[in-house]
Amino acid sequence: MAKGLAPRIGLLTEHEMFTGFPLAAFDELVFGGHDIREQTTRDAALEVGRDSGSIAPELVKRLASDFRAIDRRVVTGSAPNAGKVITQMATPKVQRDRRTLRSTITRLRKDIESFRERERCDRVVVVNLASTEARIRLAAAHKTLAALDDAIDADQRTKIRPSLLYAYAAATAGCPFIHFTPSNVTLCPAMRELFDEHGVPYMGADGKTGETLVKSALAPMFKYRNLRVLSWLGYNLLGDRDGFVLQEGDNKASKIDTKDSLLPNILGYAPQTHVAIDYVASLGDRKTAWDYIHFEGFLGHRMHMEFTWHGCDAILAAPLVLDIVRLVDLATARGETGALTWLGCFFKSPIGVATQDLHQQWHALEAWVRAQG
Amino acid sequence: MAKGLAPRIGLLTEHEMFTGFPLAAFDELVFGGHDIREQTTRDAALEVGRDSGSIAPELVKRLASDFRAIDRRVVTGSAPNAGKVITQMATPKVQRDRRTLRSTITRLRKDIESFRERERCDRVVVVNLASTEARIRLAAAHKTLAALDDAIDADQRTKIRPSLLYAYAAATAGCPFIHFTPSNVTLCPAMRELFDEHGVPYMGADGKTGETLVKSALAPMFKYRNLRVLSWLGYNLLGDRDGFVLQEGDNKASKIDTKDSLLPNILGYAPQTHVAIDYVASLGDRKTAWDYIHFEGFLGHRMHMEFTWHGCDAILAAPLVLDIVRLVDLATARGETGALTWLGCFFKSPIGVATQDLHQQWHALEAWVRAQG
Amino acid sequence: MAKGLAPRIGLLTEHEMFTGFPLAAFDELVFGGHDIREQTTRDAALEVGRDSGSIAPELVKRLASDFRAIDRRVVTGSAPNAGKVITQMATPKVQRDRRTLRSTITRLRKDIESFRERERCDRVVVVNLASTEARIRLAAAHKTLAALDDAIDADQRTKIRPSLLYAYAAATAGCPFIHFTPSNVTLCPAMRELFDEHGVPYMGADGKTGETLVKSALAPMFKYRNLRVLSWLGYNLLGDRDGFVLQEGDNKASKIDTKDSLLPNILGYAPQTHVAIDYVASLGDRKTAWDYIHFEGFLGHRMHMEFTWHGCDAILAAPLVLDIVRLVDLATARGETGALTWLGCFFKSPIGVATQDLHQQWHALEAWVRAQG
Amino acid sequence: MAKGLAPRIGLLTEHEMFTGFPLAAFDELVFGGHDIREQTTRDAALEVGRDSGSIAPELVKRLASDFRAIDRRVVTGSAPNAGKVITQMATPKVQRDRRTLRSTITRLRKDIESFRERERCDRVVVVNLASTEARIRLAAAHKTLAALDDAIDADQRTKIRPSLLYAYAAATAGCPFIHFTPSNVTLCPAMRELFDEHGVPYMGADGKTGETLVKSALAPMFKYRNLRVLSWLGYNLLGDRDGFVLQEGDNKASKIDTKDSLLPNILGYAPQTHVAIDYVASLGDRKTAWDYIHFEGFLGHRMHMEFTWHGCDAILAAPLVLDIVRLVDLATARGETGALTWLGCFFKSPIGVATQDLHQQWHALEAWVRAQG
Repeated sequence: MAKGLAPRIGLLTEHEMFTGFPLAAFDELVFGGHDIREQTTRDAALEVGRDSGSIAPELVKRLASDFRAIDRRVVTGSAPNAGKVITQMATPKVQRDRRTLRSTITRLRKDIESFRERERCDRVVVVNLASTEARIRLAAAHKTLAALDDAIDADQRTKIRPSLLYAYAAATAGCPFIHFTPSNVTLCPAMRELFDEHGVPYMGADGKTGETLVKSALAPMFKYRNLRVLSWLGYNLLGDRDGFVLQEGDNKASKIDTKDSLLPNILGYAPQTHVAIDYVASLGDRKTAWDYIHFEGFLGHRMHMEFTWHGCDAILAAPLVLDIVRLVDLATARGETGALTWLGCFFKSPIGVATQDLHQQWHALEAWVRAQG
Repeated sequence: MAKGLAPRIGLLTEHEMFTGFPLAAFDELVFGGHDIREQTTRDAALEVGRDSGSIAPELVKRLASDFRAIDRRVVTGSAPNAGKVITQMATPKVQRDRRTLRSTITRLRKDIESFRERERCDRVVVVNLASTEARIRLAAAHKTLAALDDAIDADQRTKIRPSLLYAYAAATAGCPFIHFTPSNVTLCPAMRELFDEHGVPYMGADGKTGETLVKSALAPMFKYRNLRVLSWLGYNLLGDRDGFVLQEGDNKASKIDTKDSLLPNILGYAPQTHVAIDYVASLGDRKTAWDYIHFEGFLGHRMHMEFTWHGCDAILAAPLVLDIVRLVDLATARGETGALTWLGCFFKSPIGVATQDLHQQWHALEAWVRAQG
Repeated sequence: MAKGLAPRIGLLTEHEMFTGFPLAAFDELVFGGHDIREQTTRDAALEVGRDSGSIAPELVKRLASDFRAIDRRVVTGSAPNAGKVITQMATPKVQRDRRTLRSTITRLRKDIESFRERERCDRVVVVNLASTEARIRLAAAHKTLAALDDAIDADQRTKIRPSLLYAYAAATAGCPFIHFTPSNVTLCPAMRELFDEHGVPYMGADGKTGETLVKSALAPMFKYRNLRVLSWLGYNLLGDRDGFVLQEGDNKASKIDTKDSLLPNILGYAPQTHVAIDYVASLGDRKTAWDYIHFEGFLGHRMHMEFTWHGCDAILAAPLVLDIVRLVDLATARGETGALTWLGCFFKSPIGVATQDLHQQWHALEAWVRAQG
Repeated sequence: MAKGLAPRIGLLTEHEMFTGFPLAAFDELVFGGHDIREQTTRDAALEVGRDSGSIAPELVKRLASDFRAIDRRVVTGSAPNAGKVITQMATPKVQRDRRTLRSTITRLRKDIESFRERERCDRVVVVNLASTEARIRLAAAHKTLAALDDAIDADQRTKIRPSLLYAYAAATAGCPFIHFTPSNVTLCPAMRELFDEHGVPYMGADGKTGETLVKSALAPMFKYRNLRVLSWLGYNLLGDRDGFVLQEGDNKASKIDTKDSLLPNILGYAPQTHVAIDYVASLGDRKTAWDYIHFEGFLGHRMHMEFTWHGCDAILAAPLVLDIVRLVDLATARGETGALTWLGCFFKSPIGVATQDLHQQWHALEAWVRAQG
């Protein structure tokens, strides 16, 4: 887009409501990161494109030097206590990594800081785009920063997940952090205390890109007509690396939690719900969801509606990340701290946001935009 | 519901947000009307139930005396210039009716007034629930009340449709009027002038019960993500009397107009749209709609979603009428006049409402409710 | 239908291809059976009708004496080793039943024989319509009749399921047996030996009523065009007692086995398949299935199709049972024995039938009908 | 495929049932033709691929010399009385062509003959792949060859459509002819007489590639269960040149005729049917169809099923043409003449085939294959 090779569609921050808004331009953004696998970004793009037809091989070819530049800015990640299915995707070097939790945090922080210096960035927005990690039962160690620090110092790996370490590194480097996956320890109360202490904002969790987005747009309609939803079943088929990781029961449970809490919140009562996620290898980066909604109307008569959603995972998620990064960057520059609740419409489990109603979340974003005027 | 024989579902005015709200109770409502056919309300209820399973024959049986009481309050209607397909459904007596337009209006007004007196009603809310009439090209006669009165006095039947006469009668009887169908002359500027002159409120047009409701709930989502809708096709299958009337090209055109203007309004640009309505006799009172939405996201990649809606026409429309009547009754009691724009979420073409976004319409209703506090 | 109260639709044996065929007339059929619950047939019919609108209460009322007559012919069943979810639905009396397996068989056989005598039936066709039982791993005891008899004599309950005992009783009473559920021990080799020894025919397993029926009708099309099916996912939602029983993992596994073996048989290779069955209480006797089929065509291009099936369980299954009973009755009268393979089109796992292709199965039935000429 | 650049999927003649069958190998086939437009085959392939992702630009690039070779074998076509929508797509030169019908036939025949000589082909199979032409009412001129010849000699253009002239040229050049579109005069009785006179086989009409294919696979299932189909509605959305031509009412009517006659043939009675075809520009070469099937089962209970088909027009049609050409080539070599009815499963309106049941059609093909043994 910076080079004019692709249309500016699918990006909210390119909508006319942001005309004249002081967001970072695309050619001002520099991309880097940590990875526990060794695939180049170019190969990842080709893989997504081959599966779904979404990224043309010729586009990838024309961007070859850009991909190489990004790859040079990607450093090896760490993944302690990532769980079996994620660990097996890591390089042997990552798997053999025996650093303590504390030294890992320090290492990650320094990586971020040197990226910032080397690339002469005004600000760095750290986004967690790793695979969904299995839940951890929240305990005392997650309630206060002091307790968490004790656990980290005692190298209690079962208390953390990798993404928490990256969040910790971000906070201590003074960088805002966006949690785009559902892992539950990453922004636990102890971590939010850490961000507040360092005066940097954060937001999450779990980008709302497909079936849940539709759900949160549609469910209010049933409330407006006092149509009683009896059952709402959602079936998600996906075939990419995310889908592969979600085959693992624990990781899937983590994802389903954030997808399944939405309806009671919007409707004010709990219909029977079911969210299934199945890995369908042939779909590649494509996602299909079928939702069945059984509801009761006047005289108790039962009716139903269904929807199917046929999307492409990368194509739906990537622009959200760009939108969020640009917005968070501006908010950070203007001194905002804490949970950026006006970003709620982008997340399945928006921290600090009472409503799951997409439209109310949207109005919060509109209000923020107007207030920036 | 007044007798506790049916659950209070599907009625917004029974939602907890209206708890303690001074709406007319169900046993305070008295139903009457005009009809150009001879079917009893009991038989109509049995017909709907037989087709769709929505109204149990036993319920109809238990309400036999109530149906008879309503039928006693139904008087013969008038239908000048109703168009062929509607006229052929009228009784011979209605078809032979040679009254002038002016005398028809007077007759209808007196019917309403005697209903009010006989039933000792505080107020009468007149609702147009007749079949969709074919459009008329709006001309000078529809712009000012004076011109309209001239046309009526000259008995220019091609300038009016039956529903305009009922609206005229309502206004002159001091009754609020709800236009639940899409006929375009009924609330033309001249008529609105009439309502204003008589100080009674009105609202319309065309109850939003099914496919269009879903559309107006879903379309904003595409705007929120700047996903570009390329094409949105909607196919409506219905088998009841409404569907039969809509087989006629002109009547259908009238309906499609109100269904089809929605997307450009919400999205801010005009995708390719198509709305089809097909009569499927075997469906009876059931309605099925299939919508196909083709859209473009990041990098110009094309994706799609579909929904199907399986409803029952009477079951979806009836509670809206009850809701609107109760709300309009209250507004009238409190002295509101003009177009009741806060009722916009109930209509496909809400008069005086700039937005077709269901959620913004809903917020207007919420604001009105709060203001009544 | 015998009384002219219902149309003769949904029954193959009432299709014109059976005109003049010497099948038992409806008023020649007498219904009885065993049940482990206490619900009357009348209440069961009302329950199905209430859930789905499929059986009108008035029809049930008009048939009250017929339902009572059937109930008088229903005797208490037995359910040793039925598994937890089925056992808990049985009456306390059934649960306390401590008969040996052998004496249970004898008891059931005598019940059948006295039914036959008392009702003066020429023949009795025994049909297993009980809930799906969990699989048992087939072992030596299921291979030969001698071994099975030893296990029964030793009262080895874990080797059998209730439906095997009914089948045993039927065979020894000289009655043909139809296995309408997927339970795998019921018609194991040892049992087939028993039927052959007694010279009575049998057939099964698992009536093909909905999603699997469509699958077996549609899958051959992909073969005809050499379109390669990559993935075929089927999601079944059902809310009746069958659905309730299938919530239990082991019972569900039994069902899914018969649903899932179909595609490799028809296509000649094994695409990724998945069959899910979810209990959705609000659906009552209604069943909904969504199937997603991902396939590859010319140049390896990937396309897909989907279908949804909205049926009513009882309405789809009941006529199949009547059809099968009438056909088996005739075949028995004409001296057929062994597996009635020409009935293959009625079953998900047709015994002795090599093909799962619905159309080839149908041609076998057509050939049998012609041969009866 | 001849060069090993694409998998041999989607082609029936590459299915294992044809192993060892003496069909022409792909590298023995030579492609040429007539065209009234000027687009190169390479550009057409790129256009299809751009719309649907079905043909990779890189594949087109690697085949550049092959496309050029084909283009050199494509000569200018003729299109007298093609109708407005087709004529406007022709080059000015084609539009100005004032040849008589007879001289056009002679010209086309010579083109075919010189192609055959120049390329040293053993046989030439002529396939009509042009856009759907509007119907002509069949009259005396179409009944006998003598009458048709008189009309052609009198240059009565309104009696013919372009595709008839190509068929005439093929017959007189001794070439078999395949009619892949629905145009009704092309293989009228007079034309079949011509083919018989020249001793060459023919077959048509209208390739069965998508929605109709599924319909003809599925409809027999309803017969097998005596489920009464009440209504079957089919909605086709397509965006390519075919779709553009079908926007024109007369051309569409021609198409719908062949799509709509299928159900009464298979079911033995006529449910309410409706086939809609809508042009949706954004779909490009993609086709989507939604079918809604309302049916009645036991006790007259009404149920329904739906399917959606998401295909790519070129990808579905191209392999059928290759399959048919290879099979017709063999049949011609072996001296078959007349309508090749065993090819019925490939056509929407198979000439001389009584059944529309896909499975019966398939069995005819299987029988032919076996007979070739």
